[in-house]
Amino acid sequence: MEAGIFFQRVEWVPSYATAAAANPADLEAAELQAMAEFRAFAASLGMTARVVSTANRPRVVVFVSKESHCFHDLVLRWRAGEFAGDLVAVVSNHPNLREAAEGYGLDYHHIPVTADTKAAAEAQQLALLERLDADLVVLARYMQVLSADFLGQFAKPVINIHHSFLPAFAGGKPYHQAHARGVKIIGATAHYATRDLDEGPIIHQDVTRVTHRHGVDDLIRIGRDLEKRVLAQAVRWHLNARVLAYGNKTVVFD
Amino acid sequence: MEAGIFFQRVEWVPSYATAAAANPADLEAAELQAMAEFRAFAASLGMTARVVSTANRPRVVVFVSKESHCFHDLVLRWRAGEFAGDLVAVVSNHPNLREAAEGYGLDYHHIPVTADTKAAAEAQQLALLERLDADLVVLARYMQVLSADFLGQFAKPVINIHHSFLPAFAGGKPYHQAHARGVKIIGATAHYATRDLDEGPIIHQDVTRVTHRHGVDDLIRIGRDLEKRVLAQAVRWHLNARVLAYGNKTVVFD
Amino acid sequence: MEAGIFFQRVEWVPSYATAAAANPADLEAAELQAMAEFRAFAASLGMTARVVSTANRPRVVVFVSKESHCFHDLVLRWRAGEFAGDLVAVVSNHPNLREAAEGYGLDYHHIPVTADTKAAAEAQQLALLERLDADLVVLARYMQVLSADFLGQFAKPVINIHHSFLPAFAGGKPYHQAHARGVKIIGATAHYATRDLDEGPIIHQDVTRVTHRHGVDDLIRIGRDLEKRVLAQAVRWHLNARVLAYGNKTVVFD
Amino acid sequence: MEAGIFFQRVEWVPSYATAAAANPADLEAAELQAMAEFRAFAASLGMTARVVSTANRPRVVVFVSKESHCFHDLVLRWRAGEFAGDLVAVVSNHPNLREAAEGYGLDYHHIPVTADTKAAAEAQQLALLERLDADLVVLARYMQVLSADFLGQFAKPVINIHHSFLPAFAGGKPYHQAHARGVKIIGATAHYATRDLDEGPIIHQDVTRVTHRHGVDDLIRIGRDLEKRVLAQAVRWHLNARVLAYGNKTVVFD
Repeated sequence: MEAGIFFQRVEWVPSYATAAAANPADLEAAELQAMAEFRAFAASLGMTARVVSTANRPRVVVFVSKESHCFHDLVLRWRAGEFAGDLVAVVSNHPNLREAAEGYGLDYHHIPVTADTKAAAEAQQLALLERLDADLVVLARYMQVLSADFLGQFAKPVINIHHSFLPAFAGGKPYHQAHARGVKIIGATAHYATRDLDEGPIIHQDVTRVTHRHGVDDLIRIGRDLEKRVLAQAVRWHLNARVLAYGNKTVVFD
Repeated sequence: MEAGIFFQRVEWVPSYATAAAANPADLEAAELQAMAEFRAFAASLGMTARVVSTANRPRVVVFVSKESHCFHDLVLRWRAGEFAGDLVAVVSNHPNLREAAEGYGLDYHHIPVTADTKAAAEAQQLALLERLDADLVVLARYMQVLSADFLGQFAKPVINIHHSFLPAFAGGKPYHQAHARGVKIIGATAHYATRDLDEGPIIHQDVTRVTHRHGVDDLIRIGRDLEKRVLAQAVRWHLNARVLAYGNKTVVFD
Repeated sequence: MEAGIFFQRVEWVPSYATAAAANPADLEAAELQAMAEFRAFAASLGMTARVVSTANRPRVVVFVSKESHCFHDLVLRWRAGEFAGDLVAVVSNHPNLREAAEGYGLDYHHIPVTADTKAAAEAQQLALLERLDADLVVLARYMQVLSADFLGQFAKPVINIHHSFLPAFAGGKPYHQAHARGVKIIGATAHYATRDLDEGPIIHQDVTRVTHRHGVDDLIRIGRDLEKRVLAQAVRWHLNARVLAYGNKTVVFD
Repeated sequence: MEAGIFFQRVEWVPSYATAAAANPADLEAAELQAMAEFRAFAASLGMTARVVSTANRPRVVVFVSKESHCFHDLVLRWRAGEFAGDLVAVVSNHPNLREAAEGYGLDYHHIPVTADTKAAAEAQQLALLERLDADLVVLARYMQVLSADFLGQFAKPVINIHHSFLPAFAGGKPYHQAHARGVKIIGATAHYATRDLDEGPIIHQDVTRVTHRHGVDDLIRIGRDLEKRVLAQAVRWHLNARVLAYGNKTVVFD
């Protein structure tokens, strides 16, 4: 970045964590004390420090609509141990993925959203997120725009996957737009949701080559692979405390 | 493509071309006759056919401004035999690359362009292109926009390199735009120039990953590599008759 | 290829297939006749032709061991309609994925394999494949080597995924080998299984960049993504009749 | 890496360097003192520190044979200011690139090498490198193997470009090997030369997709682009003190 700011990320294993025979309560106390000491040390140097313990696993709520590929992908990665956090529930404006979610043992909350009921639906979602003590919302191809009000009240990170290489093809039907323009590469972008749609800090992007032989349906199919891995990588980095939003950008310690 | 049109490219070596002892005039006559016959055959099937002979090497004029990387790259590739065509001259609105061009044995035509002299300068360029019998103009980071008039009168292909992943960051200073937006990937796009700036049919695109650690200067440096190889690939495909512009898109037989 | 052979793939929609009111039996008869006629036409030109109907969906049997990522990926893609064929059963030398397979509604055949029982186990597998009328076997991280005898008797294609960029790191534990060598890129390779292990015709390969910060566990995790998409792409191309094995190589009409 | 070692790279601009009106001699003294102080500080913490000043530009000697692409590429990048070092001379076992080198204003030393004269030729090269006070040798498609003796006596880094994705296709004619194997991706590898040919620590690798339509000549042409940018990136990182060889691997602070 060019703001004269120095960013650094350090990960360490404290000696008390590897000591034998510690009981959990002692460990937690040692951890809290160590974190407080580091914060004080950082402050004494004039640094701003965010200190997190990997013992604390963030609670993740996944929002979906009808498309299932990102949803299955996130769940299977979580079950494979790829995430330093836990999926605690699924929220959807449609009933379609209930069976799949419950098959994975996940609670499914169907909260329909129409133009008329949007405010009420968001209130319901916020109450649910509070009850679930959610630390992160992941929009896994959730096809509703969250209002600025919702984002302000939730006040915790929301990660969205947009199915284009932003800022190209912002807005709706990006694969149709890409096909109409005749691009030779398509992309996907994971970003923090902000009140300006498709304008939040970008966490991760990736692309794939396409040709004139690919129709819109091919782009949609090929794009699913991109969306899955770009969203999963962004969620993974976020849960590992490897992403730092700064202004409208991110610093990613990959 | 989705217009119900079938595109095919066939490349063949006619028996007369491998026959021993043919004299050049006979060869050329045989070639012209074979091409005419194929055109007639294609027409009899209701096909539109473009038939070109690799004996005919298109004449290429390169337009440059001050940036030299694409210019050197094109010349060195041409000398390495990578192009099925010949660089015949360099045109520039600045004197900077004269020495380099002449060092390669290429004629250098310095035609300054200002807002006031643009029409006259373009008339001069057109007269030069006609005199040189140019088949293709390559804009190798030429920083002037060619007018619709110029393109209409030249009436032959013009390939441009835009230093972004179009349609993202059209217009000026794309690396500055990319840096301000905080994208994680930058790109370059080679396209046929049309009267709508940055809107012509895309021939080739490529991208490179960047991080928050890269400043604008890094993007410019990294982008040079992208620009060189995307432009060279587009020129190469074009000269091999592998690109077919159709509407606002291209079919590339790679 | 450099053998003076011309390969071409044509896909067409016959008029009888789009005619209204045809009954299925008539359609099938028309199809068989059209295919026979095309074969005769091709033979009259001295061409070797393989003619397949998309109405005929190949029957695919998936072999797995304990690793589940390629298995889930194949099933979810099949359910999303990405494959022009059908998964008809799962075979494994371990019981681990039974629940997952049956959860997807797929028959699971647990056939243990030890050094002593290998011949008998292969006989059992072959009988099963015959009973299932299998057209293709996909080895989705199946950790047993199929004998030359098995391949000879099955006499139909077997696609394997090897977790390295072949021919680098053939054999066991390729991610450990890659880490020990300090490579900056890892890969995965889908190929037809032949009697020479890891030597069969390559269908598809892809790679991902890694750094010195990645340990073996990271390579394994990152590699899972590669393996999934390389295997799925190879299976997809194969089922679309886009792959033609020729000598020890493949022609892929992508 | 997995050796329990923590690697860190810090770059800083000392206040004396931005102070106005300093004279060069004072600056150099301030620099030497600051470097010595940092080394002492690091040692007091039990760290091993390498401290370099960007005021000190390493002297680079390029070794070539007949292929010119990497040579032109390195020189043009150096002239474009991409390298934190200086090309001081060109050494070759052939006379072919003399004119090009001298055209760039570079001294060209033609030292022929045959099986019989190899020891004498290497002695001549070593004497030249000493006279030139070379800090780095770059083998830009130099087709002779440097002996273990040479490497031991030079005792400074030598960077080589191998035209394959090592460890695949080590040894001679890698593009022919790649074509014969039918791989779908080709690569290039820049590494430090060690006494075990093609076995030195890898600095950088990159790859490009190829198809069955590409003959050996296409692979050679496509590979030139890879070789150029992989070698240039490795040289650039090395000159920026971003590469740290550790055992048979490298840590790259990119």
